[in-house]
Amino acid sequence: MAYINDHYFKLKGGYLFPEIARRVRAFSAEHPELAKTLVPCGIGDVTEPLPIAVIQAMHRAVDELAHRESFRGYGPEQGYDFLRRAIAENDYRRNGMDIADDEIFVSDGSKCDCGNILDIFGDQNRIAVVDPVYPVYVDTNVMAGHTGSADELGNYAGLVYLPCTKANGFVPEIPKERVDLIYLCFPNNPTGSVATREQLKAWVDYALENEAIILYDAAYEAYITDPAIPHSIYAIPGAHDCAIEFRSFSKNGGFTGVRCGFTVLPKSLTALTSKGNKKNLHPLWNRRFSTKFNGVSYPVQRGAEAIYTETGQEQVRNLIGHYLGNAEILADSLCSTSLEVFGGRNAPYIWVMAPSGYSSWQVFDKILRDIQVVITPGTGFGAQGEGYFRVSAFNSRENAREAARRFKEVRW
Amino acid sequence: MAYINDHYFKLKGGYLFPEIARRVRAFSAEHPELAKTLVPCGIGDVTEPLPIAVIQAMHRAVDELAHRESFRGYGPEQGYDFLRRAIAENDYRRNGMDIADDEIFVSDGSKCDCGNILDIFGDQNRIAVVDPVYPVYVDTNVMAGHTGSADELGNYAGLVYLPCTKANGFVPEIPKERVDLIYLCFPNNPTGSVATREQLKAWVDYALENEAIILYDAAYEAYITDPAIPHSIYAIPGAHDCAIEFRSFSKNGGFTGVRCGFTVLPKSLTALTSKGNKKNLHPLWNRRFSTKFNGVSYPVQRGAEAIYTETGQEQVRNLIGHYLGNAEILADSLCSTSLEVFGGRNAPYIWVMAPSGYSSWQVFDKILRDIQVVITPGTGFGAQGEGYFRVSAFNSRENAREAARRFKEVRW
Repeated sequence: MAYINDHYFKLKGGYLFPEIARRVRAFSAEHPELAKTLVPCGIGDVTEPLPIAVIQAMHRAVDELAHRESFRGYGPEQGYDFLRRAIAENDYRRNGMDIADDEIFVSDGSKCDCGNILDIFGDQNRIAVVDPVYPVYVDTNVMAGHTGSADELGNYAGLVYLPCTKANGFVPEIPKERVDLIYLCFPNNPTGSVATREQLKAWVDYALENEAIILYDAAYEAYITDPAIPHSIYAIPGAHDCAIEFRSFSKNGGFTGVRCGFTVLPKSLTALTSKGNKKNLHPLWNRRFSTKFNGVSYPVQRGAEAIYTETGQEQVRNLIGHYLGNAEILADSLCSTSLEVFGGRNAPYIWVMAPSGYSSWQVFDKILRDIQVVITPGTGFGAQGEGYFRVSAFNSRENAREAARRFKEVRW
Repeated sequence: MAYINDHYFKLKGGYLFPEIARRVRAFSAEHPELAKTLVPCGIGDVTEPLPIAVIQAMHRAVDELAHRESFRGYGPEQGYDFLRRAIAENDYRRNGMDIADDEIFVSDGSKCDCGNILDIFGDQNRIAVVDPVYPVYVDTNVMAGHTGSADELGNYAGLVYLPCTKANGFVPEIPKERVDLIYLCFPNNPTGSVATREQLKAWVDYALENEAIILYDAAYEAYITDPAIPHSIYAIPGAHDCAIEFRSFSKNGGFTGVRCGFTVLPKSLTALTSKGNKKNLHPLWNRRFSTKFNGVSYPVQRGAEAIYTETGQEQVRNLIGHYLGNAEILADSLCSTSLEVFGGRNAPYIWVMAPSGYSSWQVFDKILRDIQVVITPGTGFGAQGEGYFRVSAFNSRENAREAARRFKEVRW
């Protein structure tokens, strides 16, 4: 008799975006005329076309596959050398961070990496997540059996939640208790907060002292414009011995539908066997790639490589400028109302505190009904998100301007 | 202190292809002139370019991503409707098998699916694998902690091995003991054997009776030319209640570097919770896709869709015909020697028994040294592979003819 993985039944999440869709559908059925004017500001998906340098590179790669002489079959599971080198050189070594080509693992996206990384860790680790948080960190730990059940707030027993609040500027304090794996994400989804060098240094120092490992999600690093804010955890001395970094081409090159990201796993990184022997993690992650993955589509890897060319870089800067321009327009509008507004600088997300007495879903309903704008209720990202909502800058300029205009019309 | 997943240290495998490469390098250094004439017959990777229908569809999809109006970001994690429908309709419903569109899960390859499927099963299952076998089934179970250590032959404690031998025609007998998850692969890699309808029916009956689940790898189904041999486990009544099928575009459309495959998981399929309650597996696999995956690259999905067009089908038939033609040339040559030859019909692999007294690696060395052809030693696929070697038909016609000519020259 085959047995199921019971842990899946503990999962509470996965209701956020379906519930948003349900409420929008109900509103649209009730008010079909108003529904025609809906402006989406909820989703973290890019809207602008791919950089031309990427398009051209993908076309060339597809053509290579059309001829026997240039055809390529299975590639290296960890990514082609040309892309691993381009990433290590441009994102790290050029910025003074010592990362070797073979410390880069090219994948089909950061979401997959954030979940798959758990494969190489034991079940006995104490796991800390920021709250609010990208739900994938929590859900993949629930599925792996690393938690107990969820309480009414949606908090799972056994996880250590690190509250990100207005009081701490949405950058969590170092925990007093011991934790072994720590998920951090800066610029943060959903709060749009960034961590300073000093704040990251405190985390690296904690991890080194406790032999913990930081799982650092830098998917939004391209949105950092302040030169004082680090783009990578490896900008902090010691991070090579305590941190794994996840990055993505989704939000710089617009690859959400093209699918490419990467993990950086330094060869110096170690963790303990259950008998207490230190072992390097690099061979384990390498083995996972060889055994459970077969590399990213060749034309996609050529597209990602093109992001690092001079024209690619210029086109990516324009894309980022477009979304950051939206963020400014939206944040300015929200700031001009009675609401308290966070993020939206160095980040594509704006995090807004609902007026006193409003729950996240009440705000969602009011904004939908009053001005036909769709936002994301903060509670969907964790208990600490209650009373907040997220506004996404991933939009056309026209939509961003229209949403900005309408936000001023809400009477709270 | 972060802990590692210790189970990785039990892994014995992963040495096969590196060891082949090492021996080829050593030979080449010793005999640089002979090395220039090496003919590879070892690797299961396609050599011929993609079908033109696929190339054209991928170009069109890349162009869509170049314009705001036709740009697509995140797609459905489980695959676009257009592809799920094309698969379900053409591979299943058209052939009388009742598979719904949403029972198809589009992935970036069958190798990933074969490993990832374990996520939704409990750790208490008794697992059976055929021997010899595609190493991924075994290795992913080792990594998930479902086995003990390996013995000298490479057999892991706790797994049930189903010997595939000359005596049973390389189709395993139904086990006498109870097993819960059963990996089957037909046409088989490495033996090239196929299972008849009666043989598959015996397995389905066993699974239904024991409430076991068959994990059916049909990656090579396109090579079946005998109309009596089933292409799918779902051709057997009852399989919808006891089988998951894996398929791939790698070996029909030549997608080894493009990356696309799919899983079929019928909604009627159930397994038990640890408390013994029956639950459907479909929502769990669906949830896994939503949480740990973000869909296959859009241009790749359009390329896969093109395989099902009339021109795509014709071009795929030509590709399959090419490789099956190679298989015939190679098998004919080997049959004309003193060796015993299996497979190579309805399959792209030929499985050859080494002359008495030769180990797999001794045969490998002799063929390399005598005629400069690279084959794969059978022992790399499991203990029962000892004394055999695999010849792959994935080659240019020129290479296949040359290898065939040389096989006749070996003096055993």
